[in-house]
Amino acid sequence: MTRVGIIGATGYAGAELVRLLAGHPQVELTMLTSRQYAGVRFDTVYPSMAGHVDLVCQDYTLERACDCTDMIFMALPHQLPMSFAPALLENGKQVIDLSADFRFRDVAVYEKYYQPHKAPQFIAESVYGLSEVYPDRIRGARLIGNPGCYPTSVLLPLIPLLKHQLVQPEGIIADSKSGVSGAGRSPSLSSHYCEVQESFKAYKIGQHRHNPEMDEVLSIEADTPVSITFVPHLVPMSRGMLTTLYAVPAKAITADDIRQCLMSFYREHFFIRICPDGKYPDTRNVRGTNFCDIGFRLDMSRNRLILISAIDNLVKGAAGQAVQNMNLMLGLDETTGLRQPPCPL
Amino acid sequence: MTRVGIIGATGYAGAELVRLLAGHPQVELTMLTSRQYAGVRFDTVYPSMAGHVDLVCQDYTLERACDCTDMIFMALPHQLPMSFAPALLENGKQVIDLSADFRFRDVAVYEKYYQPHKAPQFIAESVYGLSEVYPDRIRGARLIGNPGCYPTSVLLPLIPLLKHQLVQPEGIIADSKSGVSGAGRSPSLSSHYCEVQESFKAYKIGQHRHNPEMDEVLSIEADTPVSITFVPHLVPMSRGMLTTLYAVPAKAITADDIRQCLMSFYREHFFIRICPDGKYPDTRNVRGTNFCDIGFRLDMSRNRLILISAIDNLVKGAAGQAVQNMNLMLGLDETTGLRQPPCPL
Amino acid sequence: MTRVGIIGATGYAGAELVRLLAGHPQVELTMLTSRQYAGVRFDTVYPSMAGHVDLVCQDYTLERACDCTDMIFMALPHQLPMSFAPALLENGKQVIDLSADFRFRDVAVYEKYYQPHKAPQFIAESVYGLSEVYPDRIRGARLIGNPGCYPTSVLLPLIPLLKHQLVQPEGIIADSKSGVSGAGRSPSLSSHYCEVQESFKAYKIGQHRHNPEMDEVLSIEADTPVSITFVPHLVPMSRGMLTTLYAVPAKAITADDIRQCLMSFYREHFFIRICPDGKYPDTRNVRGTNFCDIGFRLDMSRNRLILISAIDNLVKGAAGQAVQNMNLMLGLDETTGLRQPPCPL
Amino acid sequence: MTRVGIIGATGYAGAELVRLLAGHPQVELTMLTSRQYAGVRFDTVYPSMAGHVDLVCQDYTLERACDCTDMIFMALPHQLPMSFAPALLENGKQVIDLSADFRFRDVAVYEKYYQPHKAPQFIAESVYGLSEVYPDRIRGARLIGNPGCYPTSVLLPLIPLLKHQLVQPEGIIADSKSGVSGAGRSPSLSSHYCEVQESFKAYKIGQHRHNPEMDEVLSIEADTPVSITFVPHLVPMSRGMLTTLYAVPAKAITADDIRQCLMSFYREHFFIRICPDGKYPDTRNVRGTNFCDIGFRLDMSRNRLILISAIDNLVKGAAGQAVQNMNLMLGLDETTGLRQPPCPL
Repeated sequence: MTRVGIIGATGYAGAELVRLLAGHPQVELTMLTSRQYAGVRFDTVYPSMAGHVDLVCQDYTLERACDCTDMIFMALPHQLPMSFAPALLENGKQVIDLSADFRFRDVAVYEKYYQPHKAPQFIAESVYGLSEVYPDRIRGARLIGNPGCYPTSVLLPLIPLLKHQLVQPEGIIADSKSGVSGAGRSPSLSSHYCEVQESFKAYKIGQHRHNPEMDEVLSIEADTPVSITFVPHLVPMSRGMLTTLYAVPAKAITADDIRQCLMSFYREHFFIRICPDGKYPDTRNVRGTNFCDIGFRLDMSRNRLILISAIDNLVKGAAGQAVQNMNLMLGLDETTGLRQPPCPL
Repeated sequence: MTRVGIIGATGYAGAELVRLLAGHPQVELTMLTSRQYAGVRFDTVYPSMAGHVDLVCQDYTLERACDCTDMIFMALPHQLPMSFAPALLENGKQVIDLSADFRFRDVAVYEKYYQPHKAPQFIAESVYGLSEVYPDRIRGARLIGNPGCYPTSVLLPLIPLLKHQLVQPEGIIADSKSGVSGAGRSPSLSSHYCEVQESFKAYKIGQHRHNPEMDEVLSIEADTPVSITFVPHLVPMSRGMLTTLYAVPAKAITADDIRQCLMSFYREHFFIRICPDGKYPDTRNVRGTNFCDIGFRLDMSRNRLILISAIDNLVKGAAGQAVQNMNLMLGLDETTGLRQPPCPL
Repeated sequence: MTRVGIIGATGYAGAELVRLLAGHPQVELTMLTSRQYAGVRFDTVYPSMAGHVDLVCQDYTLERACDCTDMIFMALPHQLPMSFAPALLENGKQVIDLSADFRFRDVAVYEKYYQPHKAPQFIAESVYGLSEVYPDRIRGARLIGNPGCYPTSVLLPLIPLLKHQLVQPEGIIADSKSGVSGAGRSPSLSSHYCEVQESFKAYKIGQHRHNPEMDEVLSIEADTPVSITFVPHLVPMSRGMLTTLYAVPAKAITADDIRQCLMSFYREHFFIRICPDGKYPDTRNVRGTNFCDIGFRLDMSRNRLILISAIDNLVKGAAGQAVQNMNLMLGLDETTGLRQPPCPL
Repeated sequence: MTRVGIIGATGYAGAELVRLLAGHPQVELTMLTSRQYAGVRFDTVYPSMAGHVDLVCQDYTLERACDCTDMIFMALPHQLPMSFAPALLENGKQVIDLSADFRFRDVAVYEKYYQPHKAPQFIAESVYGLSEVYPDRIRGARLIGNPGCYPTSVLLPLIPLLKHQLVQPEGIIADSKSGVSGAGRSPSLSSHYCEVQESFKAYKIGQHRHNPEMDEVLSIEADTPVSITFVPHLVPMSRGMLTTLYAVPAKAITADDIRQCLMSFYREHFFIRICPDGKYPDTRNVRGTNFCDIGFRLDMSRNRLILISAIDNLVKGAAGQAVQNMNLMLGLDETTGLRQPPCPL
């Protein structure tokens, strides 16, 4: 059994890691840290987990992490992970970071959108944890920059088509819609029930920090600079993310070409489901699971390919993909501990 | 006091007409028809209206309509209105039809997307009731084809910019999101609470019948064929519609040009509110009201104008705009009976 | 026109006052205060109100209140109103306080459940603003303690029956359910969207401070000590409150006795609606309005009367009843400015 | 591997059985029947289950059931199960019926509230499947009448206390609140999203058919006639049920007596969780799981015990308890296949 610790276990992504890892057959949860709840049982913070986990939350110390874990998840705000990661790696731990700190190849881009980087020496080594796209690199990694939720929903449908030149790299639009849990557990006016209920709105138009993350990966995969228009919206629901992508087909292609490309690219990957013709993803179908459902419609009369992806922002968009990456790093089947069927409603 | 009748008063658009007209100072509700609830008091069907309306729902008959009304609203499924309208007009009634039957200028387009038209002789006379765009024609009309909800949300932000050549007519995308009430009151699996809650999805991609309606009006206003990409989505909320439009700026324009164009076009219209810089519409801010809030962001680095509009699909997208049109037809201020402040939550 | 000021205008109750008073025909809003938003336009804080109110929020000062208002609403946390009220009254203002500071007749009870009272000399003069029960006292008052939302929903159905000895004063149970807006606008974990959605729970069982408020009024009206069991619950909705009351019928009464008693007691009051036999209140039917809907079922086989009331916690439970009280104090019809029909959904 | 069939697999309870059994390690799903969807893959009806189940829905025939199953779940409307069960039992199948047909000991009560019984000869043999209360009988049964959702939420907290005379059997009140999925998947106005959202109401007061079911079991366990007051309410959420019980303490008892009684009664049962002092159940904590959380508060000053239970109406209230019963019948640990941790939100 691999001993696993979670730094920042009481935020939504951290708690989701606890849920998934508490039921994982090959690992043992040995450390949960939380500044806010140090000394409090985890199931006091999340009574839903009573009977499933009996750990007490602790303050993070390097010594404790070194003593009682082999694998560390960091579910912390940006900036803290790059402070903690170096010492952990030097002590032989494997690290999966759910923040943006180790996602970027180009430190200048990170520093433009976030802040000065404190551990740039680890950027070259870190692997971008888009599980189905970079499985081999992930298997050999000791430091993972786990993808953002929006980038995951944008990259999974686009990468196969860009790599095979089925869509043009220019003029791509991503109109994304996210449930409220993406904003985290800290109370704020924008996540107040009465401000969200019966409300639908766009936010951070042209200013969201997931935009450069998508652009960097797409540019690498398309082997040409890609800069997409990205507009995120907030949906009155707790979980779920749906992205509607608009792209220009690259040449005289057919819907079947699109389907074959996606099916072939993801043939061996349980968590990518391509919808049948005329069916489209629904966030409800992936709720609580690590699936990414993808559907599309090719409208040649208007020269548009419309691609739609749905994920659970906390699972495939955060904790689930992180566990999938852990599985790969541990040499397990990527679906281990992640196969429980979703609730149908 | 003008005597007003509503044919189809117990559907959601009809009931919204009852709500707005029950409080209208210049009209008297004299006839509510309903096949399903004939003989039943309206406030038995909608207990919320107890104390506000004491009419009993009746079957529709031409005789009754002629006897007791001057102005008729038709909130019926497509096809019925074109059967009823001719006789009403011939009897001197003014008619506002909330269905698609009298929205199209080109009967062939209507017949392609709906069914054979039964009263084509009235199409030339009917006026498309987009209140702020065609107020003069509406004032003189006796038959109004009240716009669809999606077209209202798409046309109001786009028309001023297309007319003034600030955006290119090609390649426009409308990514729309609607609350569930747009699907009407008839029970169906797709409006079942458990199928909607925590669900977000696209539907009828490239097949929605509001697409040709938008295209026809935009083509007229741009004076060139316009064919937009339109993808509607369903939001887990009862009311509200938000449309995110993506257009290519026509030339070297500035955000200020966009703002001036919109402000100037809608200067005299209370119900169009242009959001301040950096602020965007939220369906919550227009809930229950006839407002259309419009915001935008010009991203010259990616050569995109992003326009966002929010309406209440049942008010500005249906019953409210219909009452606004009635006001114009009766020579009243367009805001009469429609000025009640919205609930802040 | 009476000049009206609202101290604490940007909380939910304050904003609801703004909504109702902005459309009121006999008053003019002249002062909105807010510590948090001093210097900010009200419609920046609540964009829904753009076009309806153009005031800028200000810090509260006695001088400003004296200069520009005749009537003051205080929508503040407990404790502040009793600091502000004396000076306002001494300067000839009429004051309606939405907090608990002036609701209790017995200062000892207030001090047991809240804190030491700073203006006990005004308690005897203040009137408990349960509009339909104490209209005459309210008409002559200069200081109103506006009732709590839970007490309003409990007292309106019970008082007529207790006064006429149709139910026993012992053993009454109030099982209440409230929407989230009752907890106010300040962000907190318990009002976080993701903590409320798909959640239903009881809270503060046997400890809610509205319990002694109900007990005091019921004891006065029943002319005997009454101490009810009160359990509040939180419903995943923004607005609305439903209370299910269980009482023991006092003697061999019939359903008709109950109906007659309620109908007769509230005969002249527009905002109390008694449901027909076999129909029960629904919070949706009173949403955004000042109505209190009341239904009941008498189960003589189990010796129980079940009474159900529904109000909008922000309107009849707070701002609406406050405006109704203002109307009474100003000699207006109690419904002035409060008659807009509710949204049917 | 036990071969399992589900008759009525596409309703909400049936689909929940599919979810739970698809992940069960000791059984194999071999037959799913559906009149409405015969010939359609189950994962076309529920796309969430793609990848987890590849069965095609079929019409029910006795022959097919006999050929390919050992254990049968019936998730059908009342009346059908009593037609199907006899032949299945005679063919050696074990049957778990989720309807009311085999819940009652007294056929006269069933016939009063439902309809004439078609298989009364099996009533004596059938076992009421309240898993934690009747485990021994369930282990030896071949026909289970699976409890209703409301009765489950009422009986689990009350039975231990009634058996040990800690509460009086007279005057018990159950104020229950249920999510919408309890009404099933068939579209109806009362489950229409727009009729449920922002709505809270009571229904079927004193007329719900779960009332006699509760009364029969409570009377048996208390060994005296019990007739409780039961008022069900509808909550705007998909899943979850919370019941607030009001009972009169039987004598001078303490909170500790209550706690000891409950803890002791359910000591060996994983799915019953007794909340710590001052903490109360929340439907969110049991969502998607087979838990029943129980909390309480003893208010001796008002002579009331308040008990609160929370379950997921589709799991512990239907499909989950049915699977738990199957586990007992198969000699497995009662938690087999039911231990997946719940989503924390």
